Amino acid sequence: MRGWEPFLTAQDKAHLEYLGPREPKGFGENPCLLVIDDYYSVVGLVREPILESIKTWPGSCGLEGWAAIDETVGLLAAARSSGIPVIYVHGLEGFPSSWGRRRGNAGRLDHLPAEVRAKANQIIEEIAPQPGELVLQKAAASAFHGTPLPFHLTYEGIDTVIACGETTSGCVRATVVDGCTFRYHMGVVEECCFDRTQASHWLNLFDMNQKYADVVTKTQAINYFETIGPKKIPIAVSP
Amino acid sequence: MRGWEPFLTAQDKAHLEYLGPREPKGFGENPCLLVIDDYYSVVGLVREPILESIKTWPGSCGLEGWAAIDETVGLLAAARSSGIPVIYVHGLEGFPSSWGRRRGNAGRLDHLPAEVRAKANQIIEEIAPQPGELVLQKAAASAFHGTPLPFHLTYEGIDTVIACGETTSGCVRATVVDGCTFRYHMGVVEECCFDRTQASHWLNLFDMNQKYADVVTKTQAINYFETIGPKKIPIAVSP
Amino acid sequence: MRGWEPFLTAQDKAHLEYLGPREPKGFGENPCLLVIDDYYSVVGLVREPILESIKTWPGSCGLEGWAAIDETVGLLAAARSSGIPVIYVHGLEGFPSSWGRRRGNAGRLDHLPAEVRAKANQIIEEIAPQPGELVLQKAAASAFHGTPLPFHLTYEGIDTVIACGETTSGCVRATVVDGCTFRYHMGVVEECCFDRTQASHWLNLFDMNQKYADVVTKTQAINYFETIGPKKIPIAVSP
Amino acid sequence: MRGWEPFLTAQDKAHLEYLGPREPKGFGENPCLLVIDDYYSVVGLVREPILESIKTWPGSCGLEGWAAIDETVGLLAAARSSGIPVIYVHGLEGFPSSWGRRRGNAGRLDHLPAEVRAKANQIIEEIAPQPGELVLQKAAASAFHGTPLPFHLTYEGIDTVIACGETTSGCVRATVVDGCTFRYHMGVVEECCFDRTQASHWLNLFDMNQKYADVVTKTQAINYFETIGPKKIPIAVSP
Repeated sequence: MRGWEPFLTAQDKAHLEYLGPREPKGFGENPCLLVIDDYYSVVGLVREPILESIKTWPGSCGLEGWAAIDETVGLLAAARSSGIPVIYVHGLEGFPSSWGRRRGNAGRLDHLPAEVRAKANQIIEEIAPQPGELVLQKAAASAFHGTPLPFHLTYEGIDTVIACGETTSGCVRATVVDGCTFRYHMGVVEECCFDRTQASHWLNLFDMNQKYADVVTKTQAINYFETIGPKKIPIAVSP
Repeated sequence: MRGWEPFLTAQDKAHLEYLGPREPKGFGENPCLLVIDDYYSVVGLVREPILESIKTWPGSCGLEGWAAIDETVGLLAAARSSGIPVIYVHGLEGFPSSWGRRRGNAGRLDHLPAEVRAKANQIIEEIAPQPGELVLQKAAASAFHGTPLPFHLTYEGIDTVIACGETTSGCVRATVVDGCTFRYHMGVVEECCFDRTQASHWLNLFDMNQKYADVVTKTQAINYFETIGPKKIPIAVSP
Repeated sequence: MRGWEPFLTAQDKAHLEYLGPREPKGFGENPCLLVIDDYYSVVGLVREPILESIKTWPGSCGLEGWAAIDETVGLLAAARSSGIPVIYVHGLEGFPSSWGRRRGNAGRLDHLPAEVRAKANQIIEEIAPQPGELVLQKAAASAFHGTPLPFHLTYEGIDTVIACGETTSGCVRATVVDGCTFRYHMGVVEECCFDRTQASHWLNLFDMNQKYADVVTKTQAINYFETIGPKKIPIAVSP
Repeated sequence: MRGWEPFLTAQDKAHLEYLGPREPKGFGENPCLLVIDDYYSVVGLVREPILESIKTWPGSCGLEGWAAIDETVGLLAAARSSGIPVIYVHGLEGFPSSWGRRRGNAGRLDHLPAEVRAKANQIIEEIAPQPGELVLQKAAASAFHGTPLPFHLTYEGIDTVIACGETTSGCVRATVVDGCTFRYHMGVVEECCFDRTQASHWLNLFDMNQKYADVVTKTQAINYFETIGPKKIPIAVSP
């Protein structure tokens, strides 16, 4: 049973049963691994349940976040040992036009000492970028907007983006929809995504799997990376 | 109580309660109404429950769809009588690079007579565009990608997009996320959106309301249109 | 000598000589041919010098246009016989937000009988699309904006766009700059581009060749198509 | 006489005369000033003629560059004293997918001491950003691609972009074409743009003025800024 099933209604289940089993969309030959918004303010500095953690870090996802980070360690190792390029995105600091015109977030971290607050937008150490890996800053939910990510994917001939990070219902979902729009093969690694709302986590995995991506287990993702191995470099032809 | 609450877990409810009531994001001064993908293949030609309707139209949302269409009639009338521009989007026919690389959809309507099948991508008559209203074709979920919609919004000085249509979890959600990314004030009219999965419908309304938009009732949307009235035309200044 | 040299100043020539010969940027392995805005209103229905032709068709490029169309016939034949996909773009009719907020163009063709005017936006018969070839409509200079062209290129794994059409300084230039921005290998076929201003034609070929593309002869383009032959279809891998 | 006229052919002049005088496209009510790529490597650290300057800085535009920088000082002062927001763009350092797949540029500055080379991508001191002004990094010619600039313009309700910087035929031109595509009113300040090729400088001003923008003098731009004065802040309306 997939984790989203308890959230579906009886009508939803009857509807899905009528339509029959879903066929995988499939991945391509030249993937990258995209790690989305895994920075400290979404898990906190200490491993605590979400309802504890938000007392210090209002945007924290708590233990679900740390569990996903722990799983991401192995996913990253597999990508790197197979020569799959790893790309990180996180928030562009100092951009004045707030994402989504959200109000009420100003000073959310004002209660924290400056040296703690400085870690908010820092990528979590356990899964930090290695030298030479691309780290992009974004000013919206999707990694594809307002960033040169699409340029890089075309330049490298990448046809498949395997995504993980947080939140499942926010930046991961927005990135996956755009990747699908732009006609990349999209994958989502279930254990390596997390959210601050359980229902949103599971229903967004369901939605992405139905419409835009293949939601796979960490084991499936690693098997895919190992099957592909190092990507082939495209060869330029002079006119 | 909002319709998404029954889908939330106990932890989700405790989390939301801790964060406190959500403040509206707010609308701007120059809105448009965007009607997304309200064509026949998503409701069928006959008003039937979804589990009946999908026997003829596999993509049908059934009675939930027709209920939303009925509500949209009044929403459109209010927009038009207040001078709010109405824009429609639906699928670009004949584009060869299938949206989301979905497989297994070919021939889904092959069992239908040609004259019935021809109605599949036709906008539903009860809410059809009036002469002079803009109708755009898109090749992805979001109305903002691969279309000149953003050009038109800037040209007209529009700062707010009030969205409705189907599916809540598909093209409506994708459009609302992008509109927010591009820094438009986004609204979603609850009664005028529909989906083929009940859980997805409600959780996507929840997600949009939390992150990207104000999910409002039809009455609130109409009140807003009437408050705004006809938009002001920007005046050009010669150099 | 390249055709742009007579337009360069003495300082420009000294500067270029100091920098030394320009190395080709190179093409990739999976090209398409993009035919931009070759419709009747930019050449007229009759082969006349530009200063005659504009009396009927104010946007006409005259004999330079027809010469480029004649060359394009052979370019298309070579692409097709080598299995290189051909894509056409031309203007989206009826889009209300005029491109570039240009004034003074309304009614430019009002003096023409309706049946003649109807040919204005029609692709020129000698180089018309063949069944199955993609024809996209655009609402701006560049073929990459407000259209699903980038989706299609990614979907097909295309890495190189060989461009031709009109005007060299308008839609061709804008498309080539964007293609380069999006990290496609870009080519421009010199004999198959045309403009209504001679100086703009040559200087834009120079600019594109310096910065964004390889400006090649028709013979070079045909040789490249024949070297590449039919593109390889990427193979999907299931997760 | 405009500076591009000596570059036009006899046919070009006859053609333009037949079409008659060009009407200005016009500016809007809420402009910004966009300063494009004015960093040291395009003028050098010392004011020298281009053919001298390129011996140290191969990308230098020499004295034409410094002349434009000097004019930009007054343009910036006028914008600031009128409350017109100023936005800067320059190159994103360390992005691995080179712009336009250009070859042969690697190590262009290798002959310079590290502390000199460090100034290459630094904005020129005389026209440097003031605290609070937005500085964006881009990975392509146009300021609109791969950056959150369009988000910010919509957020601020900006309808007009007055551009200056370098090169006229490169990043200025690409930005102006995109701004026009996205339906902003575009202006170009003639004295504040510069290029390393004289013919390209003048013909690109001509092209932009014909198709995409109003190319104005510094005095015209300052008059426009003073007419507009501080921009009006849009007022949000709650649903």
